[in-house]
Amino acid sequence: MSDKLRIIVIGGVAAGPKTAARARRMAPEAEITLIDRGTMLSYGSCGLPFYLDGTVKNLKDLVSTSYGVTRDEEYFLREKGINVLTRTEVQAINRDTKSIQVRNLDSGDTYTLPYDKLVLATGATPVIPPFEGLELKGVFRLYHPDDARAIAEKIDEIEEVVLVGGGFIGMELAGALNNRHLFVSVVEMQEQTLAGVLDPDLEAVLRNRLQAKGIEFYLKEKVLRFEGDERGNLREVITDKRTIETDACIIATGVRPNVELARAAGLTIGPTGAIAVNEYLQTSDPDIYAVGDCVENTHLISGRKIYLPLASTANRQGRVAGDNVTGHKSRFKGVLATAVLQVTDWNIGRTGLGEQEAKDLGYEVVSAITPAHDRTHFHPEHGLVILKVIMDRRSRKLLGVQAIGPGEVDKRIDVAATALNFGATIDDLADLDLGYAPPYSTSIDPLQHTANSLRNKLAGLARAITPLELKAKIDRGDDFLLLDVRTEREFQQKRFRGAKKVLSVSLDKLREHLFEIPRDQEIVLMCESGVRSYEALRTLEGAGFKNVGYLEGGFQTWPYGPSGLMS
Amino acid sequence: MSDKLRIIVIGGVAAGPKTAARARRMAPEAEITLIDRGTMLSYGSCGLPFYLDGTVKNLKDLVSTSYGVTRDEEYFLREKGINVLTRTEVQAINRDTKSIQVRNLDSGDTYTLPYDKLVLATGATPVIPPFEGLELKGVFRLYHPDDARAIAEKIDEIEEVVLVGGGFIGMELAGALNNRHLFVSVVEMQEQTLAGVLDPDLEAVLRNRLQAKGIEFYLKEKVLRFEGDERGNLREVITDKRTIETDACIIATGVRPNVELARAAGLTIGPTGAIAVNEYLQTSDPDIYAVGDCVENTHLISGRKIYLPLASTANRQGRVAGDNVTGHKSRFKGVLATAVLQVTDWNIGRTGLGEQEAKDLGYEVVSAITPAHDRTHFHPEHGLVILKVIMDRRSRKLLGVQAIGPGEVDKRIDVAATALNFGATIDDLADLDLGYAPPYSTSIDPLQHTANSLRNKLAGLARAITPLELKAKIDRGDDFLLLDVRTEREFQQKRFRGAKKVLSVSLDKLREHLFEIPRDQEIVLMCESGVRSYEALRTLEGAGFKNVGYLEGGFQTWPYGPSGLMS
Repeated sequence: MSDKLRIIVIGGVAAGPKTAARARRMAPEAEITLIDRGTMLSYGSCGLPFYLDGTVKNLKDLVSTSYGVTRDEEYFLREKGINVLTRTEVQAINRDTKSIQVRNLDSGDTYTLPYDKLVLATGATPVIPPFEGLELKGVFRLYHPDDARAIAEKIDEIEEVVLVGGGFIGMELAGALNNRHLFVSVVEMQEQTLAGVLDPDLEAVLRNRLQAKGIEFYLKEKVLRFEGDERGNLREVITDKRTIETDACIIATGVRPNVELARAAGLTIGPTGAIAVNEYLQTSDPDIYAVGDCVENTHLISGRKIYLPLASTANRQGRVAGDNVTGHKSRFKGVLATAVLQVTDWNIGRTGLGEQEAKDLGYEVVSAITPAHDRTHFHPEHGLVILKVIMDRRSRKLLGVQAIGPGEVDKRIDVAATALNFGATIDDLADLDLGYAPPYSTSIDPLQHTANSLRNKLAGLARAITPLELKAKIDRGDDFLLLDVRTEREFQQKRFRGAKKVLSVSLDKLREHLFEIPRDQEIVLMCESGVRSYEALRTLEGAGFKNVGYLEGGFQTWPYGPSGLMS
Repeated sequence: MSDKLRIIVIGGVAAGPKTAARARRMAPEAEITLIDRGTMLSYGSCGLPFYLDGTVKNLKDLVSTSYGVTRDEEYFLREKGINVLTRTEVQAINRDTKSIQVRNLDSGDTYTLPYDKLVLATGATPVIPPFEGLELKGVFRLYHPDDARAIAEKIDEIEEVVLVGGGFIGMELAGALNNRHLFVSVVEMQEQTLAGVLDPDLEAVLRNRLQAKGIEFYLKEKVLRFEGDERGNLREVITDKRTIETDACIIATGVRPNVELARAAGLTIGPTGAIAVNEYLQTSDPDIYAVGDCVENTHLISGRKIYLPLASTANRQGRVAGDNVTGHKSRFKGVLATAVLQVTDWNIGRTGLGEQEAKDLGYEVVSAITPAHDRTHFHPEHGLVILKVIMDRRSRKLLGVQAIGPGEVDKRIDVAATALNFGATIDDLADLDLGYAPPYSTSIDPLQHTANSLRNKLAGLARAITPLELKAKIDRGDDFLLLDVRTEREFQQKRFRGAKKVLSVSLDKLREHLFEIPRDQEIVLMCESGVRSYEALRTLEGAGFKNVGYLEGGFQTWPYGPSGLMS
């Protein structure tokens, strides 16, 4: 028997290969074996939606290195010196003898392999509810490249598609298929899409924009079954509220961690249902590590365990586990639940805690939403970003940031994640020395602009009224004056219809028309983005007006149009 | 006399208007006066290069709000309640009487204005060396929108242009005019362009790429004079080494702070020659504040005073000064010397200390340069970013980051600036939970990839050889084997010609061809970006090879081609 260190890694998609590759570089002498049930290794499953909308031309690109070599068994053996066993299932872990029992899925042979260190990278599996009609042609899921191939083969025959589930994958797919000019509907059981990613206020704005692009949403609605025609083709998705005629549907109702092997071996499963690991990514057996989509993580702000399977986490963990299994202590501290995704041409991102999550943890939450240009408005490539910053009033600490828009969202999210990592206060955020030039930003970055809005709010400089609050006031029939301070031209182009009393006085005429504005009633100021109405609020308060608020985010964050109050 | 707080702000471009606007919002009752010698207020001078290359269509856009209103005297008076005196020069500050003496440049009238708080936002002035021939037609500078207008009026007649000065503005202009298909030369006295922005190694890579786009560089070269024809048109730029025939030249030899008024009033001028302020932006007179391009800043890492006039700093300072002059304590802590700019389609950014600067401060500097894709290679919009991370070996603290490339540089710089702000170590940087999805990043962000390279270097995993070191070895005629581990096809496409011994063994064949590789001599591994040669290095060291290094950054950071060693 060899006296070399024997490392076995189970799972060949993301965290597994990364662990094996790092272990190889740290321990050139080790015997490293990578085992996978399938035949496709190290594929970029995050790229699947981009294959479906035509952005990525070949599925093969998802399993290639940047220099064009396919990451197959040969690649791992030749370039990395890693033995790969594909079509091989691990049936059991025998912790006493430190060995695993495996079966070759083609030959049926079973045998035993000894390990010194074992790494579980067993991933996750899509959750498919037991709908009636799952077997119909046209019912898909999207997890493996084979799923994407199956959809792609049919896509030219598909005009209408129903996404079952409005989570991360469902929404990415909705966007990809809308890009391809399919008629897309999303059915989601919860009150909002992207629950856990976006707070309801930002999600409402996003959904409003996606509706305008032709995507239909059926929320708080449950799929009951699928119905097909006599040839076994899907024809209808039946929900608890309606029948949606369609050519195809894709089920994207989430994933669950693959923990059966770990559970059978007696390893601790955490409160989230994923494998529990310590900061060295060790399971309850010190010789067995676990990484990627099968493990739970620690949230760096709440300290709680969360299950959030992401490729970025998988890759960072692979490096850490590769170090630890070769005797080099390395820690994985946790995550901030940072995530970014694209839906049509809108970018979406988040990091840290959501507003409700923060409240549940006992923080005294203050938040602000501001729309802004991602670069100087005179630069032709500028785009809108709508940012939400969430903080704790007592400590002034940043708790979370979310952003949506066609503009550069990802940069602000990464800056926010970095600030959160170090326990930044809102003042720290506003003080950051970020880079500015017209192609990249505004002279005060949108993220800092939002931080400043929050600081103004904390200082009592402005009573901000959220769209939700304004809508409630209108719906209740409150007696207040909606004072629109945009230019007359903007007012002609679009305006609120719902409020009882609306007055248009553009900001540049406000000071000389103060006498026209009633002092005895509540005033809600509004403009396009909140900047001018905030300025107007300071002017009115300076002139002695007492009961003034402004619509935070203005028209840009008003989610109840275009069919609602806005025309 | 009024009992209202009287605030006077001198200078109407960036920091001045921002200070006045913030002061207005904080103190609605105050009497605020903004004074400027010119007539154009609050113009976005950072946009001037983008006007010249046609990206920004109208100069008017640079003085408009995002909702299309021109920021003129009327705007400030009506929207902000700020009195503006244009074409008005401040002749003296009388600190004893707390008043300023001003002169109307049109009428010649002089009068006195009292202040409670005075803010100097007097900006900077281009330094124009006393070249002979400055009066020739075709000799320009670019500082004020009028300068841009003058160039734009002539630009269709210009085929060749010489930029005198290869600093920030000179290089932005070189890029803008190259975009417009002019033949551009840059004459720079120093050994490199963008001194103080980029370290020489990255600058060499950038310059190499810009040369390939047709920009010519004359370094360590001094302009002596300009010569014209009989009609007074510029024809030649004469340097100490050559005569450059040209249609036009633009002098961009830096700016100096306008401190005359402050000096005459006896205010302290700092070691950089700019006005000294404390963290409240107060000058040595507690009732006089100074902001923007006329003040010096504290570098947050070195603690030293630096003069770095930037619009982002000016705007952040304006808010702080606006608070302080209205009695709300607010601090401006300092800067990290973060800067971003665009030259042709290459993005350039930096933050923190440069390598030499860090060495001079006594740090034990370790750095790494890595080229990487800014997003997954299968996404069609991916672009190259070349990152340099600089750290201190003893504390493992990050000291600075620089980046160049057509890919998304600005995001990595902002993340780095945020990390630097909190005293991050290289390990913190690698651990950050940044957002990943194919349109935005790679599953390990390029910045973290570079951080990992540095950690490998610190752990002694790899002997990295810089392009400079390799070139020196080649030039000296050192006896070593250059082992190229790219694919055979890549090797056929381009390869090194300079080294005496070159061997091509692609990474996937390395393990089986180990016996062909001589064990008795020094080996330098190389590939396209450094990733495969690092992997090869680990393989060779694992197989017992003792004297192996790899070319850091590979071909991507090799600055001596295409006319040199690379074909």
